[in-house]
Amino acid sequence: MIQAKGYAVQGPESKFEPFSFERRELGASDVLIEIQYCGVCHSDIHQARNEWQNSIYPMVPGHEIVGRISQVGAEVSKFKEGDAAGVGCFVDSCRTCENCKDDFEQFCQKQAAQTYNSTEMDRITPTFGGYSNQIVVDENYALKVSADQNPANVAPLLCAGITTYSPLKRFGVGKGQKVGIVGLGGLGHMGVKLAVSMGAEVTVFSTSPSKEEDARKLGAHNFVVTKESENIKPLAGKFDFILDTVSAAHDLNMYLNLLKLNGAMVIVGVPNKPAEVHAFSLIGNNRTLAGSGIGGIAETQEMLDYCAENNITSDVEVIPIQQIEQAYERTVKGDVRYRFVIDMQSLA
Amino acid sequence: MIQAKGYAVQGPESKFEPFSFERRELGASDVLIEIQYCGVCHSDIHQARNEWQNSIYPMVPGHEIVGRISQVGAEVSKFKEGDAAGVGCFVDSCRTCENCKDDFEQFCQKQAAQTYNSTEMDRITPTFGGYSNQIVVDENYALKVSADQNPANVAPLLCAGITTYSPLKRFGVGKGQKVGIVGLGGLGHMGVKLAVSMGAEVTVFSTSPSKEEDARKLGAHNFVVTKESENIKPLAGKFDFILDTVSAAHDLNMYLNLLKLNGAMVIVGVPNKPAEVHAFSLIGNNRTLAGSGIGGIAETQEMLDYCAENNITSDVEVIPIQQIEQAYERTVKGDVRYRFVIDMQSLA
Repeated sequence: MIQAKGYAVQGPESKFEPFSFERRELGASDVLIEIQYCGVCHSDIHQARNEWQNSIYPMVPGHEIVGRISQVGAEVSKFKEGDAAGVGCFVDSCRTCENCKDDFEQFCQKQAAQTYNSTEMDRITPTFGGYSNQIVVDENYALKVSADQNPANVAPLLCAGITTYSPLKRFGVGKGQKVGIVGLGGLGHMGVKLAVSMGAEVTVFSTSPSKEEDARKLGAHNFVVTKESENIKPLAGKFDFILDTVSAAHDLNMYLNLLKLNGAMVIVGVPNKPAEVHAFSLIGNNRTLAGSGIGGIAETQEMLDYCAENNITSDVEVIPIQQIEQAYERTVKGDVRYRFVIDMQSLA
Repeated sequence: MIQAKGYAVQGPESKFEPFSFERRELGASDVLIEIQYCGVCHSDIHQARNEWQNSIYPMVPGHEIVGRISQVGAEVSKFKEGDAAGVGCFVDSCRTCENCKDDFEQFCQKQAAQTYNSTEMDRITPTFGGYSNQIVVDENYALKVSADQNPANVAPLLCAGITTYSPLKRFGVGKGQKVGIVGLGGLGHMGVKLAVSMGAEVTVFSTSPSKEEDARKLGAHNFVVTKESENIKPLAGKFDFILDTVSAAHDLNMYLNLLKLNGAMVIVGVPNKPAEVHAFSLIGNNRTLAGSGIGGIAETQEMLDYCAENNITSDVEVIPIQQIEQAYERTVKGDVRYRFVIDMQSLA
């Protein structure tokens, strides 16, 4: 076995502490990645604190992983030692179901092996995430990362990037379209950069007037403070597409009413209670409300390649792992611009 | 002016009574239709009783109108005297907005003139619907109806038909797809006939075990009683498309979970309270929840032509107008197979 070290929580109330554990020996199609950076996703916090009631402890969170290949299995063809590589939200899936075959491994009908708080497909071996110094993963579930981009800024693409890229692509966002991005956090700021790069006219909806300057720096054309309902009303029926990145409970009908004929709104956040949706909000203008969950391996690679070509990365605050507790507190308060990323050199 | 007679309610608590009123003189592009049959839509009841808080009295409901052209204006080219014709949910729109130009007059940005409980585009002249002996309408807002089909059975196509046809077409329902129809009422029974005609494998979801025989006669391949949750669970992730025709409040998440990857559910009913939608119900499998509101003139004509070619009409119970109160009571109880249609000869 390969000795790894990281930071783990032992229970929902625990603080993070150094944690030593084992990664499996490299199989023929496995690669060993020396982790350089790992992003801090809000879902790390939900799971570390058992807020989704499905937590397995000890837990080493982290699914926005970027590093360098330090060893390759006998049959690995996609990577060689020294390559930049990434790992996202899952590390394996059944590979045989309809969804896996259609490149939607994230919706594997037998349940994909999540990068942490999960097990390998053997349903026995626990998985541990990226708040650690190295990870073993099948090459088919590792991503190629551009060596030209700063790895700290690339790490959040593995979750925040694909989560926003996938619905923008699926709904054909492009030139001449009016696109709304609801919420300017880790997901929202990626949504703005990506939608702008695709040629859309982008409006940010936020409860924080203080974020207007940032929104415009990120490329947004318009900024609407949503606490003032008179700002919203004149926009009824104006938008082709709205990406709602807010994970706190909020009114969806207000945004649905901004959609024009056949317009669509996609939610990617998971509030802790259901949304109330009025039938007329959907029936008027034949509107669509959809959900979107990360992306499959092929689409994640497409997104990474797209971001490399278009010079897009995440805005990050790099922290040593010893500051993870403070980073969680600040993330919960929305006080981060726009993603904490852990520098794994701090583990040494 | 043209003298017309029909049945009207004078207020939310009133019973229907005979009512005499005037239709406008024929303009150059108007046709006069001698009404033969008018369907009884559940929305007639909502509006007659002011359940949507937007009722204008006196009200002559009815927007599933079929009859014969008895007179044509000087410039009418689409119809000649004696032609079978129909009128649906609206009788005019602005004709210049983006939605009108895109053949979605039902979503006219200046608000279409509804067939009743509305005004003409002058915003002054009240509109009166099809519970009457004749109607004057611009030829562009009248539909051609097959002379080969029974007009009583055709009438409900003007609302129930287009309401179900439009989403089935929009989401590409066809051969090899598994389609669910929720609710077997006026809309649901049309949804079954149409989806079956399009080649789908159709499952009816109903709370009434007694409707199974009917469902199968209508062409449904499967029937699921939704009160038993063990009937539902094995169907998770199996459906490409679900059309939800129920207008009473009910749980949407149960049905959303039946959708496979990228599957869509469309609601066409308007419950009197908002639905609670869990984010995970949409994010899992990248699911879509959409609304759909009737159809534009071009699509309504397409639907009528499709139904004529495919020998599809509504199952109806024909009543004299004097039985309208009893018909409302039975419709509210769901005790109609599957649409009441008023025979206007009874007005004489």
